[in-house]
Amino acid sequence: MGTTAAADADAETETVTAGVVGGSGFAGGELLRLLDGHPNVELVQATSREYAGKSIGGVHPNLRGRELRFSEPSALESVDVLFTATPHGITMEHVEEYTDAADLLVDLSADFRLATEGQYDEWYDGHTAPEYLEVAEYALPELNRENLGDADIIASGGCNATATLLGLKPLADAGVLGSEAQGASDTSSGGEPRDGADVVVDVKVGSSEGGAGGGAASSHAERSGVVRPYAPTGHRHEAEIEQWLGLSVSFTCHAVDMVRGASATCHVFPDGPVSKKELWTAYRGAYEAEPFVRLVAGGSGSYRYPEPKAVAGTNYADVGFELDPGNERVVVFSAIDNVMKGSAGQAVHAANVALGFEETAGLEFAGLHPVGSP
Amino acid sequence: MGTTAAADADAETETVTAGVVGGSGFAGGELLRLLDGHPNVELVQATSREYAGKSIGGVHPNLRGRELRFSEPSALESVDVLFTATPHGITMEHVEEYTDAADLLVDLSADFRLATEGQYDEWYDGHTAPEYLEVAEYALPELNRENLGDADIIASGGCNATATLLGLKPLADAGVLGSEAQGASDTSSGGEPRDGADVVVDVKVGSSEGGAGGGAASSHAERSGVVRPYAPTGHRHEAEIEQWLGLSVSFTCHAVDMVRGASATCHVFPDGPVSKKELWTAYRGAYEAEPFVRLVAGGSGSYRYPEPKAVAGTNYADVGFELDPGNERVVVFSAIDNVMKGSAGQAVHAANVALGFEETAGLEFAGLHPVGSP
Amino acid sequence: MGTTAAADADAETETVTAGVVGGSGFAGGELLRLLDGHPNVELVQATSREYAGKSIGGVHPNLRGRELRFSEPSALESVDVLFTATPHGITMEHVEEYTDAADLLVDLSADFRLATEGQYDEWYDGHTAPEYLEVAEYALPELNRENLGDADIIASGGCNATATLLGLKPLADAGVLGSEAQGASDTSSGGEPRDGADVVVDVKVGSSEGGAGGGAASSHAERSGVVRPYAPTGHRHEAEIEQWLGLSVSFTCHAVDMVRGASATCHVFPDGPVSKKELWTAYRGAYEAEPFVRLVAGGSGSYRYPEPKAVAGTNYADVGFELDPGNERVVVFSAIDNVMKGSAGQAVHAANVALGFEETAGLEFAGLHPVGSP
Amino acid sequence: MGTTAAADADAETETVTAGVVGGSGFAGGELLRLLDGHPNVELVQATSREYAGKSIGGVHPNLRGRELRFSEPSALESVDVLFTATPHGITMEHVEEYTDAADLLVDLSADFRLATEGQYDEWYDGHTAPEYLEVAEYALPELNRENLGDADIIASGGCNATATLLGLKPLADAGVLGSEAQGASDTSSGGEPRDGADVVVDVKVGSSEGGAGGGAASSHAERSGVVRPYAPTGHRHEAEIEQWLGLSVSFTCHAVDMVRGASATCHVFPDGPVSKKELWTAYRGAYEAEPFVRLVAGGSGSYRYPEPKAVAGTNYADVGFELDPGNERVVVFSAIDNVMKGSAGQAVHAANVALGFEETAGLEFAGLHPVGSP
Repeated sequence: MGTTAAADADAETETVTAGVVGGSGFAGGELLRLLDGHPNVELVQATSREYAGKSIGGVHPNLRGRELRFSEPSALESVDVLFTATPHGITMEHVEEYTDAADLLVDLSADFRLATEGQYDEWYDGHTAPEYLEVAEYALPELNRENLGDADIIASGGCNATATLLGLKPLADAGVLGSEAQGASDTSSGGEPRDGADVVVDVKVGSSEGGAGGGAASSHAERSGVVRPYAPTGHRHEAEIEQWLGLSVSFTCHAVDMVRGASATCHVFPDGPVSKKELWTAYRGAYEAEPFVRLVAGGSGSYRYPEPKAVAGTNYADVGFELDPGNERVVVFSAIDNVMKGSAGQAVHAANVALGFEETAGLEFAGLHPVGSP
Repeated sequence: MGTTAAADADAETETVTAGVVGGSGFAGGELLRLLDGHPNVELVQATSREYAGKSIGGVHPNLRGRELRFSEPSALESVDVLFTATPHGITMEHVEEYTDAADLLVDLSADFRLATEGQYDEWYDGHTAPEYLEVAEYALPELNRENLGDADIIASGGCNATATLLGLKPLADAGVLGSEAQGASDTSSGGEPRDGADVVVDVKVGSSEGGAGGGAASSHAERSGVVRPYAPTGHRHEAEIEQWLGLSVSFTCHAVDMVRGASATCHVFPDGPVSKKELWTAYRGAYEAEPFVRLVAGGSGSYRYPEPKAVAGTNYADVGFELDPGNERVVVFSAIDNVMKGSAGQAVHAANVALGFEETAGLEFAGLHPVGSP
Repeated sequence: MGTTAAADADAETETVTAGVVGGSGFAGGELLRLLDGHPNVELVQATSREYAGKSIGGVHPNLRGRELRFSEPSALESVDVLFTATPHGITMEHVEEYTDAADLLVDLSADFRLATEGQYDEWYDGHTAPEYLEVAEYALPELNRENLGDADIIASGGCNATATLLGLKPLADAGVLGSEAQGASDTSSGGEPRDGADVVVDVKVGSSEGGAGGGAASSHAERSGVVRPYAPTGHRHEAEIEQWLGLSVSFTCHAVDMVRGASATCHVFPDGPVSKKELWTAYRGAYEAEPFVRLVAGGSGSYRYPEPKAVAGTNYADVGFELDPGNERVVVFSAIDNVMKGSAGQAVHAANVALGFEETAGLEFAGLHPVGSP
Repeated sequence: MGTTAAADADAETETVTAGVVGGSGFAGGELLRLLDGHPNVELVQATSREYAGKSIGGVHPNLRGRELRFSEPSALESVDVLFTATPHGITMEHVEEYTDAADLLVDLSADFRLATEGQYDEWYDGHTAPEYLEVAEYALPELNRENLGDADIIASGGCNATATLLGLKPLADAGVLGSEAQGASDTSSGGEPRDGADVVVDVKVGSSEGGAGGGAASSHAERSGVVRPYAPTGHRHEAEIEQWLGLSVSFTCHAVDMVRGASATCHVFPDGPVSKKELWTAYRGAYEAEPFVRLVAGGSGSYRYPEPKAVAGTNYADVGFELDPGNERVVVFSAIDNVMKGSAGQAVHAANVALGFEETAGLEFAGLHPVGSP
């Protein structure tokens, strides 16, 4: 269990065994890549109903040459840490089996991201294991590091919520989002979120968010070159955002032509005047010690603001902002790789924290330049 | 002059001569394509300082096989209608020469889009021919059709402003944007625009907006796959939007990976409750007779909302919306081809109105499906 | 029937009725666009099993606003000309029904492209209506114009075969491909094609070739940015190429990141020395009177050779070449839009010839510049 | 010097100092990324005339947060190994300065890739330091590992040549390319390459090959979606291919829509019959011990053949083939990341060999799945 590991002075040289349930999807494949190269992890199993018996490199061509083969989900092995990258609803159904098989369960689905059954029912359909909701901890270390060390279940956040939260949380904590937002972190245990006409979040996402699968709308011919609104209102990731900010936001997503990436542009209208200096103070205070958040401060080159390209393949979140003096708007930009910081990388980062490993272990890839539509 | 043509019962079979100044750029090339295929136009000249002597098909490969060659700008011929597709600042410098050479001048630059010298100076540098500002008429027929017939100078609107205005004008006219907005059309002659924290406009544009040219930031390797904020605050097209809506908006642009297209997502927060029916009434009233605006009403397929792909190469604007009951937000989507409806197509449409031709003459292309990043 | 129409002096102002079977696919949608805008055609029916009852604009967003709705394939109406854009095997099954319903049948599938049952069986599975194979005429007017006027059934060629044939046929006719190739046009009625190690054809195609549908391999996330060999050997379009050139070629396809387009690079090794002048003579002789073939002769700009971008959305084929003195190789480039010249455009062009209309009627669109991945 | 290092039993824990001349370009930036993360390297300097004084993360956004700043090229520091990523012609001009400053010089330009002045003059303009040509060793370890240990100057190969050579060298060594090819490796010291009508190489490359810079032809609007022939005949990389295969090939390049990647499709016509088994024997014998070459053996998924996507960001070359029984053609596919295996990765790999480090040190990144146009 992570707490023991965390107490161990030799934690960084320790090795744990790990398994991945649902290893044939995009997030699952990324877990396989990260765990295969993780200095403290021995990857012992990857399950896939569809590809059982096939080598992992036969599904994920970047993993060609690895010996590991997919096994049936029914033949689950006991491991120290189990990652589940299954469609929503599967982990809650098997949560007892999974927690029996592993000391630490890290789930990448939406099943355990919300704190209460009431919140879950508001945004999703009925939860089949609600008693685990309060057991689970939200994975994002920048928001919840202090609770990860004791966690038995960790729920990796939604990609769009992750991008948005990393952009807005420092402003919420600094009181820029409104007076009630200051206690935002506490609202997960109750309280009515205040109305949020003050924050508009316009997110652009890549096609990997749709998962490995297909369908006419996500075919290359139909999806290439799109600027396609989807879930223009009522996106489920709003639930996570409300839970952590203590206020609701006006949220709209657009599919654009990239494979990896989620970019949140947050238009924030503070109640009163705010200065650039105050904003920098808020962001620097929040992130100066964070290994995976980089503040992007404008400048003169081609890359003046956060962009998903610059973090593709990495666990970084790039965050920056611009202040619009005319109408006292703060425009916050937050860019992540949805498969990494928005899913598998966040999960491994949280597991590193929980298990007492170096936080950046297995997550050192710096990203590429140039890179196209990563 | 257009007024004479408009009065002519045989206008639709009449032919005028036309020239294009600045025909080697993207908007200029599109003018050449449109005018070359226009049933009422004889294209007699295209100028280009850089490519004088070269065939127009040598620069614009879609026009291979045409006999017309670029001529020096200094050798300007007299024509009935002259289109200028030059960088900002050139037309104002040559406006006397151009209006001497042609009965009707249609300018695609920003030089004559604003109504007063004061407005111009607020957003651009000093105007060298301010006395022509009140002479010029804004090209967008959906906003200004009644004034085009008498025009001597027509100023084609900015692409981002065009997409935004087509999305928001019906709401302004219906009072949804605030009581003061109802007289919006009159504000071009003065008055202080009201503060506009109520409307956030998040625009996504293609690389053709940057024009034919190049530079490291717009190179394929750097620009592919981007979600790149640019002009996140203070974009000059806000001036046109303010002029026509009577209120300022919070405006931010992003470059995304497409070549043609401008897509405006407008997050509107009405003062009071508004119903879907009211909104449809407003949009249908505004656009039911418009030949180039299509209302997109959701539905079940891959294309539920306006998308630039669906209008690529055409003069259409697709407009639609979604109502967010939770926080009383209207999310308006407006998609155009920036080179067409946002520039050259708008110019030809306005000229058709001014000259009394069929409004759709030369603009009949229906667009393609499928189409990638057009 | 076409022959009557062809004899009619007023043919160009005549109007025929047309229907499209299989109108929801990519080629079918393109037919709808072309026929909807065709001056001599009244489009009266479009069938689709899946979308019966839905407006054609609900499936093809470029056709928004048209009133025509899909009808069930079983409710086929009698028309003057019927276009079938169904999967391979459907037209042969219904060929009696279709030829009863229309004077002229234009099929876009592979069912009637080959001249004999033996050829068909070599490349495809058993033909169920082989007696119609010799009735049908190959659509490509550049190869077979003289036989289209009397045709009852016209078979639109395969896109890759079309690109290849337009690049190589002038060389075959000029004897550059080998002495036996001179009688190539006659080989459709028999004769063993000679061995063709002398011609390597390397084709690059867009995702629209796969048709509207989907599947994991053609999803945006998997197909973006590919250079993916497919059918590296044994591609079925070789059959058409052999039929018309009289020799077999070494043929390999690659999927690349575009939606529309097929580009054939043909590496030709003549038996003896050949000069640029001879080559130009061959190509000019073959194509100088062709309305839809443009010879691209190098030059100094960005577009020195044929490229699919430059013909996207059009019925043009751009053809050019370079001569490699070192090893006496001719590198021929041929670029088309696979949905247009490689399918629906070719079909309409052939129908225009058969029906005695202006050859370019309904096919006037000039294409766009700039244009991305069309 | 590398030989000493190679002899050192503790080589793998040893650290050398390294500098990069020309660090602001694409290959230079990749060197900075690789050396910054290399366990045996201390990166002490990066020069850039244009960006001197600016942090390396200000030019390469993936390197945000690094402290190193570009320095003037004139202020060159002494290091153990110096990498030069400058335009062709610069290294030869400064070769004495560079070899004085470092024990080992690894050049990424074309200056020292060819063995003799005669070869150089045939393909490039006059060499200013021809006496170093025979001193320099070609970097590709798969071809020249045995000569790297003693090298003072290493010349990283051209990207298109690298992809082609890795695809064809096993066939040359196995005698499949013709009897004379067996002694191919020796032809660098003389001998007339035999005529090569038997091998056609059709290469597809990404936009990063053009380097950081710009220009109208490489702008996003012009280059998106291209299948653009360039250097269809007479490509300079043919010189390297001839040098190592002992025969000339028919070589043509196409720019396609990706940023990173070079994919060579080699159409090989052996003199006599060849079996799949013989081919597999040749490739397995050549590459089974190679850490960076993976044989791709068809199979059933989306990724049956080598594709640049599957190696993007990595130092891998994926190689595979298909046999065309009909005309006895072998179609060989070879895919690399041009910035990595085709340039900076190859350079670091060669330096690892020369310096006695683990060959894979600093080159462990596994690549991504899914990934777009990397």
